[in-house]
Amino acid sequence: MEIQGRNIIGFESYSEGNVAIQAVNPTTDDILGPLFYKATEDELNLAVEKARSAFSSYRKVSGTAKATFLEAIASEIEALGETLLNRYTLETGLPMGRAQGERGRTCGQLRMFANLLKDGTWVNAKIDPALPERSPLPRQDIRSMERPLGPVAIFGASNFPLAFSTAGGDTTSALAAGCPVVFKAHPAHLGTSELVGLAIQKAAKDNAMPDGVFSLLFDDGIEIGQKLVSHRDIKAVGFTGSFRGGTAIYKTATQRPEPIPVYAEMGSTNPVFILPETLANKGEELAQQYINSVTLGVGQFCTNPGVLMIRKNESFMKALEEKAENAQGGNMLTGNIQSAYHAGIEKARKFTKVIGIGKKPEGKTAVEPYILHSDYQNFKDNPDLSEEIFGPTSVVVEANSKDEFLEIAQNLNGHLTATVHGSEAELAEYSDLLEILEQKVGRLIINGFPTGVEVTNAMVHGGPFPATTDSRSTSVGTGAIYRFTRPVCFQDMPNSLLPDELKNSNPLSIWRLIDGEMKN
Amino acid sequence: MEIQGRNIIGFESYSEGNVAIQAVNPTTDDILGPLFYKATEDELNLAVEKARSAFSSYRKVSGTAKATFLEAIASEIEALGETLLNRYTLETGLPMGRAQGERGRTCGQLRMFANLLKDGTWVNAKIDPALPERSPLPRQDIRSMERPLGPVAIFGASNFPLAFSTAGGDTTSALAAGCPVVFKAHPAHLGTSELVGLAIQKAAKDNAMPDGVFSLLFDDGIEIGQKLVSHRDIKAVGFTGSFRGGTAIYKTATQRPEPIPVYAEMGSTNPVFILPETLANKGEELAQQYINSVTLGVGQFCTNPGVLMIRKNESFMKALEEKAENAQGGNMLTGNIQSAYHAGIEKARKFTKVIGIGKKPEGKTAVEPYILHSDYQNFKDNPDLSEEIFGPTSVVVEANSKDEFLEIAQNLNGHLTATVHGSEAELAEYSDLLEILEQKVGRLIINGFPTGVEVTNAMVHGGPFPATTDSRSTSVGTGAIYRFTRPVCFQDMPNSLLPDELKNSNPLSIWRLIDGEMKN
Repeated sequence: MEIQGRNIIGFESYSEGNVAIQAVNPTTDDILGPLFYKATEDELNLAVEKARSAFSSYRKVSGTAKATFLEAIASEIEALGETLLNRYTLETGLPMGRAQGERGRTCGQLRMFANLLKDGTWVNAKIDPALPERSPLPRQDIRSMERPLGPVAIFGASNFPLAFSTAGGDTTSALAAGCPVVFKAHPAHLGTSELVGLAIQKAAKDNAMPDGVFSLLFDDGIEIGQKLVSHRDIKAVGFTGSFRGGTAIYKTATQRPEPIPVYAEMGSTNPVFILPETLANKGEELAQQYINSVTLGVGQFCTNPGVLMIRKNESFMKALEEKAENAQGGNMLTGNIQSAYHAGIEKARKFTKVIGIGKKPEGKTAVEPYILHSDYQNFKDNPDLSEEIFGPTSVVVEANSKDEFLEIAQNLNGHLTATVHGSEAELAEYSDLLEILEQKVGRLIINGFPTGVEVTNAMVHGGPFPATTDSRSTSVGTGAIYRFTRPVCFQDMPNSLLPDELKNSNPLSIWRLIDGEMKN
Repeated sequence: MEIQGRNIIGFESYSEGNVAIQAVNPTTDDILGPLFYKATEDELNLAVEKARSAFSSYRKVSGTAKATFLEAIASEIEALGETLLNRYTLETGLPMGRAQGERGRTCGQLRMFANLLKDGTWVNAKIDPALPERSPLPRQDIRSMERPLGPVAIFGASNFPLAFSTAGGDTTSALAAGCPVVFKAHPAHLGTSELVGLAIQKAAKDNAMPDGVFSLLFDDGIEIGQKLVSHRDIKAVGFTGSFRGGTAIYKTATQRPEPIPVYAEMGSTNPVFILPETLANKGEELAQQYINSVTLGVGQFCTNPGVLMIRKNESFMKALEEKAENAQGGNMLTGNIQSAYHAGIEKARKFTKVIGIGKKPEGKTAVEPYILHSDYQNFKDNPDLSEEIFGPTSVVVEANSKDEFLEIAQNLNGHLTATVHGSEAELAEYSDLLEILEQKVGRLIINGFPTGVEVTNAMVHGGPFPATTDSRSTSVGTGAIYRFTRPVCFQDMPNSLLPDELKNSNPLSIWRLIDGEMKN
């Protein structure tokens, strides 16, 4: 497969537009060929029309057939081999190890959803048989299960060119649910996006999926994305990115004639609390782990720990200072992200002291880590300090009492995660802190750091606004599939016409709630 | 318990305002004492503040304790005896049989949710243990379950003074989820609302629930409701009513600084299709059942069948004419609803022929049923005919072919239900019709009529916009609880600090998804 710079629209490729977008290596400013063509409005409409048409058959494709399709996508991505990995590193400035790791995670996600579909139980099949003897109700046979919403618009994220991009968690969960995807590629990794898009296209063709089950559109601005969200045949939106971008999409989607759900994951500062005894006992070790988490991936993760809450502890601060100055920076994903990082640091420095500034490597988008310090009163007086600065930086906030910890927690907005370090006895003593934090986040972490999100059934990568626009959902793990489904109920439907999941004989051997009891 | 006309705010009652609202008997215009006092802004803020404060403990109340609370509410409602039933009939003009039936349904719902809580499995507990041997993932112990969102605003519906009102499905599912409720009473049944509110208040006190777990506010306009939806400490909204009311609330909620979910069930026309052979074989019987469904409760149900699609059939039309003219009208719930019905009929008659006008009883708000007729072309040319007229009326649309049936189905907006009558062979022949309809509704009914919604686990009372503002939810049945919860994940939390639902020993013996397998 070869990068052509063309929009992928179902089984065809198009580049009818006349706005060209140039891929660059952010670390060198070198131009990377070929030119990519911004999708035209006709191309966008064709992609959605194909998705709408594909939905009428794709929604009925069996779980096992969808599983085979997802597995084929994973194999095709792996078959791209060095072509994909090299392009990834050139477009992002990220190291080869990261490219390989993220490819593994992406293919792992695809296979995890394939397994979910093969198992089949995810559809929440419920059967309430008519039981005339249990007068007066139920008189009718009522059955329901989750069904796909329709064509979905997905936006690629800058910071995960594979795992939250073309065939990332959003696309994969939508395809698993039975929804065709129209994907808007992120301009920071155009070639990587197209390569993966071609892998999906090939997997779709080879597995007899309908033309239009997947399309990929290029744009270097917001026009195509906004038009996509406004399109009447788009039924849901998945997005990972900035607060500004996410809320703009949410606004468009909720003000349509027919509003649609938006799953915008907009990041957060992921506060970390270290309880005093643990800070005293393991300060040195925790200082290093904290710096590692702050600088991982040049700090470009949604779960980057942007605020660390501690009680005054001089030896910890000393350890931190040393480790902060030895911390490694790196090249950021784009020049824009680099500029925003510098602007954020400049602003934050006005209200904080510097604990340590790490090392900056070679490269056009290279930055150094900044570990900053604030006392609690100052942190409270400057709410901007609670806002995310995307990059390898974090503010250490010194509080004077348990009450101040509780007050900080109480004043938090919604976040993806919160973390508490403490011994079991200390945690029990601070159970009120844990309870407050639980209400502010999607994931509460004990004695760990928030970066490194496991892709499992129980994972919740989400949280109350402004972390996301829909706290009832997760964008990582198998639970992500429910973002793209709704329950549909069949009343007194003849058994032969029911979906297999609801037939009397349970041909798929799935777990079902029958008259209130789990059975398989 | 006695009606006092006072707002219920937690364990107290207040009437500090100076705007009085008068309850009336709609069928006689008789004034019903006492006066009710519109909530003041202070009273509203106090109710929400109490709810916020109650949430910190109510969210942790065990399932069995919440179940006892819900059962106590049911018993207290029953203990109101004739006081409640008489007030219900006076305020609504509905017959005693309906009052008794709806009370039974309401208490049945409360007890159904109590059983759901006692069973406990509803929380979707998922456990992914750390399995270092399964390198590289999962490295951490990840567990998640559904947790309540926070204080919820619920609006009483005019048409179900008990079952979708003070202790109706919305309030019950929110309380079951662990969310305190601030309830805005519908002005059409003020005394009924207060009596049930007092029953909830007593049950809360007797069962040591926190002050503020339930409040009830009066208003005859939209001010209190809008302020409630705008209040920063309200975290979700349940509403059943008009399209105009529901979309106004949706707009307010999604444009808040922190947007919140709105579950507005706004009704629909619930199209019914009768396939030709079945129409020929059972026309007489179906004509009567259709008229019964249209006129049930004076047509004041969300699932009232507002459109009937048939193929031309003279003997059916003849049967229908006779039955339509014998159909019984009744008194509508309020003078406003009556006026809107007359306006709707007047408008619809401009584009239709009258098949039959039913009988009108005595009473100030009495109306007669109207069964109208349109051919398909006319129906297509006048989209207003597809809109709900709240009351005992329906339009019979004659189509000329299967293709026209499919076209009608394809052009439908979102509805709560769609119904198809046909033999198994005929239904198989029309499987494309069933598939289209399934995508337009929350519930697809075969050989029945949409009125009479069973309250079960598998029920879906919802559907795509404009039937509701959130097609991913149901407002009837146990699934309604998930409107008021979100998943929360605990990573490496010490077993002793986990909620019981996630503890290793499974002390509640609930079904859980452990490493991908259902276990209990």
